[in-house]
Amino acid sequence: MSLNPKRTVAELKELRALTGDDSGAQRVAWTDTWLKAREWFAAKLQGMPIEHHYDAAGNNWVTLLGASERAMLIGGHLDSVPNGGWLDGALNVVAALEVLRRINEEFAGRPPITVRVVDWADEEGARFGRSLLGSSAFAGTHSIEADRGRTDRDGVKLEEALRRCDVGIDRFPEARREQKNAAAYLELHIEQGPVLERLGLPLGVVLGTKGVERHIITFHGQEAHSGSTPMNARRDALAAAAKLALGIRTIAKKHEDAVCTMGSVKTFPGIVTAVVGRCEVTLDQRDLDASALAQMYREAQEASRRFAAEEGCTVGWSRLWNIEPVPFHPHLLDLCEEAVRESTGAAHRMPSGPLHDAAEVSRAGIPTVMMFVQSLQGISHNKIEDTKEEHLEMSVVALDRLATKTMDWILKQR
Amino acid sequence: MSLNPKRTVAELKELRALTGDDSGAQRVAWTDTWLKAREWFAAKLQGMPIEHHYDAAGNNWVTLLGASERAMLIGGHLDSVPNGGWLDGALNVVAALEVLRRINEEFAGRPPITVRVVDWADEEGARFGRSLLGSSAFAGTHSIEADRGRTDRDGVKLEEALRRCDVGIDRFPEARREQKNAAAYLELHIEQGPVLERLGLPLGVVLGTKGVERHIITFHGQEAHSGSTPMNARRDALAAAAKLALGIRTIAKKHEDAVCTMGSVKTFPGIVTAVVGRCEVTLDQRDLDASALAQMYREAQEASRRFAAEEGCTVGWSRLWNIEPVPFHPHLLDLCEEAVRESTGAAHRMPSGPLHDAAEVSRAGIPTVMMFVQSLQGISHNKIEDTKEEHLEMSVVALDRLATKTMDWILKQR
Repeated sequence: MSLNPKRTVAELKELRALTGDDSGAQRVAWTDTWLKAREWFAAKLQGMPIEHHYDAAGNNWVTLLGASERAMLIGGHLDSVPNGGWLDGALNVVAALEVLRRINEEFAGRPPITVRVVDWADEEGARFGRSLLGSSAFAGTHSIEADRGRTDRDGVKLEEALRRCDVGIDRFPEARREQKNAAAYLELHIEQGPVLERLGLPLGVVLGTKGVERHIITFHGQEAHSGSTPMNARRDALAAAAKLALGIRTIAKKHEDAVCTMGSVKTFPGIVTAVVGRCEVTLDQRDLDASALAQMYREAQEASRRFAAEEGCTVGWSRLWNIEPVPFHPHLLDLCEEAVRESTGAAHRMPSGPLHDAAEVSRAGIPTVMMFVQSLQGISHNKIEDTKEEHLEMSVVALDRLATKTMDWILKQR
Repeated sequence: MSLNPKRTVAELKELRALTGDDSGAQRVAWTDTWLKAREWFAAKLQGMPIEHHYDAAGNNWVTLLGASERAMLIGGHLDSVPNGGWLDGALNVVAALEVLRRINEEFAGRPPITVRVVDWADEEGARFGRSLLGSSAFAGTHSIEADRGRTDRDGVKLEEALRRCDVGIDRFPEARREQKNAAAYLELHIEQGPVLERLGLPLGVVLGTKGVERHIITFHGQEAHSGSTPMNARRDALAAAAKLALGIRTIAKKHEDAVCTMGSVKTFPGIVTAVVGRCEVTLDQRDLDASALAQMYREAQEASRRFAAEEGCTVGWSRLWNIEPVPFHPHLLDLCEEAVRESTGAAHRMPSGPLHDAAEVSRAGIPTVMMFVQSLQGISHNKIEDTKEEHLEMSVVALDRLATKTMDWILKQR
């Protein structure tokens, strides 16, 4: 037997039936359904000469020892958002399993280098609002103190939810041990955007994950009666915010692939009979180029101050979160491009707007690359998330090709 | 003794002390504090040769019978919003009491025409969301069926709250009987806007109450991931709404004194990481001229459709409420202008953006006019609502002058 991409699709459907319902995938990390998905995955490993364990942060490791301890890692995550899609995260894990099977067979259980499949714990952060949890513990970028107090909607503490799964947050730093001998990290993921579909391409080479600047911006004007306050006597906080909602588009369009999004607007008092006295908006800015991102952030601040002044308002910024851009490894990018081109006849390089575990692995200094497979309508985190089966199969073939090239590259480095 | 405007200010302070707290006035209709304010008012009437009763809608009537049954009505409302100001509504009632005292004394208890002071029930609609409740019952524009099922925040029904005050909603139509012999209606009110303060004028003549068009407008675009969706692939419902937030200002500015307000914006899903898929906004448009109001409404609809199309969105409108403009009586406007000019040396005519009980009285066909006194900073419905004491005193003098002129006018009509 050789690589069987159709089996990957069949197994993904099996997983969907087991852990989804009419509203979509329900594999939220630290829940029983997630544990069920992991049991299902463990059962698939039976009969293979692998070592299987969970690390101190709950990451799920499958190791096929090779002649060399130097290891190629292929990773994804079985956890989903509530009412999520069938492919986000799971594709990576199930495709990696297929690649592992092929390697195991080809080398009769003893490949020239070690091959490891990792299913990261809690990539989505859907329940506790902390994404990339397991991979950040692996990378050593995690802060126990920042996360210890997190609770879910029902008031359950992150710490307690982890304990139920036999994971102790105080032992998180031990997950860094898994970095040992890691020579490369590969991750296949659905695009979760419309770019490949628009280009008519099944697969893409991911240049890196964009840096993110995420802020809450508050405009203060003067609440006033909508009937008694003449237009020229208003200090309308919404007007300033509306100008910024449009202004950020001009700012983003100066840079190829950059995005700026105002995702939330809250108006106070927020009633039909009052001019808005206070307007709170969120801004999310992303680009792969750190200096472009810094420029966009600066320009948005300047624009907000200008619009506030024009409307007789004041403005304040409060950072919610930020992360630097994470460019992937140049040589692995080349290998990924070869693999994609050989599998589909064309290769498009593109940044990833969404974050992925690959960003954390790359920050740990491990050569990393990602491959995207087309998403239909760019929709993800939704039960209608989908990808053509022929594209899913192509992605397994391309990932396998990339694995072979990467193993050769690691061997040559010795 | 003659008219004593200082007494009006002192009595307003007395009422404030009795029915307010650190957060402002608490005379919310159908509450104990409101009933306490009415008891306080009733006590002030002792010793005067008046008839005093509450009508079927809870309106509070004080009648000084004259030689003629034809009646001049002067009205206001003792109820306030929660955490309201000391003057909104109460000024009218307390100033009318002072004018009544003067007339009573001047004519030794028997003026040439009947004079009535009315304290309308539930002008604010603060608790049940139905303003002008008592005056609409008086005018016969009230719908029992529309209001019967209203509840407050705690689930108490309007019907029950009224019953606690011995008012039965089914008897509301009987309040129309109070229209009998009404020949004119006068109302003094704080401006609740910044116009008179900006003009440096203590008093103003109110042309009428503006018509209102009030709508919810919903833009539908496509929810999308803020990281993975390129700027040119978005259908951002917020962008369309932001254009409308700015566009309504251009529409309003074509008409003197017209106003357009977007008071509420709601974004869905409303999270920092998603392009807004649905945006729900409110629009409140007002003008004294019915054709101008109709034009503004039409232009806002056209603009919303244009902006939706530009952003790849769709748009839908849903009317919340509307009311036609209510212009006041031309001759009473002239008399009001004389009274204001004689009291302050100048007279400015202006529309009222906020609605008032006077609009309902006018809709009942009774010649009506209102007088405004300056509000500091245009702020109302707030504990910091205020007016200079000298301006309050001037307003009592001017109302009294207007009352004398109106009585003469009514007499001449015989």
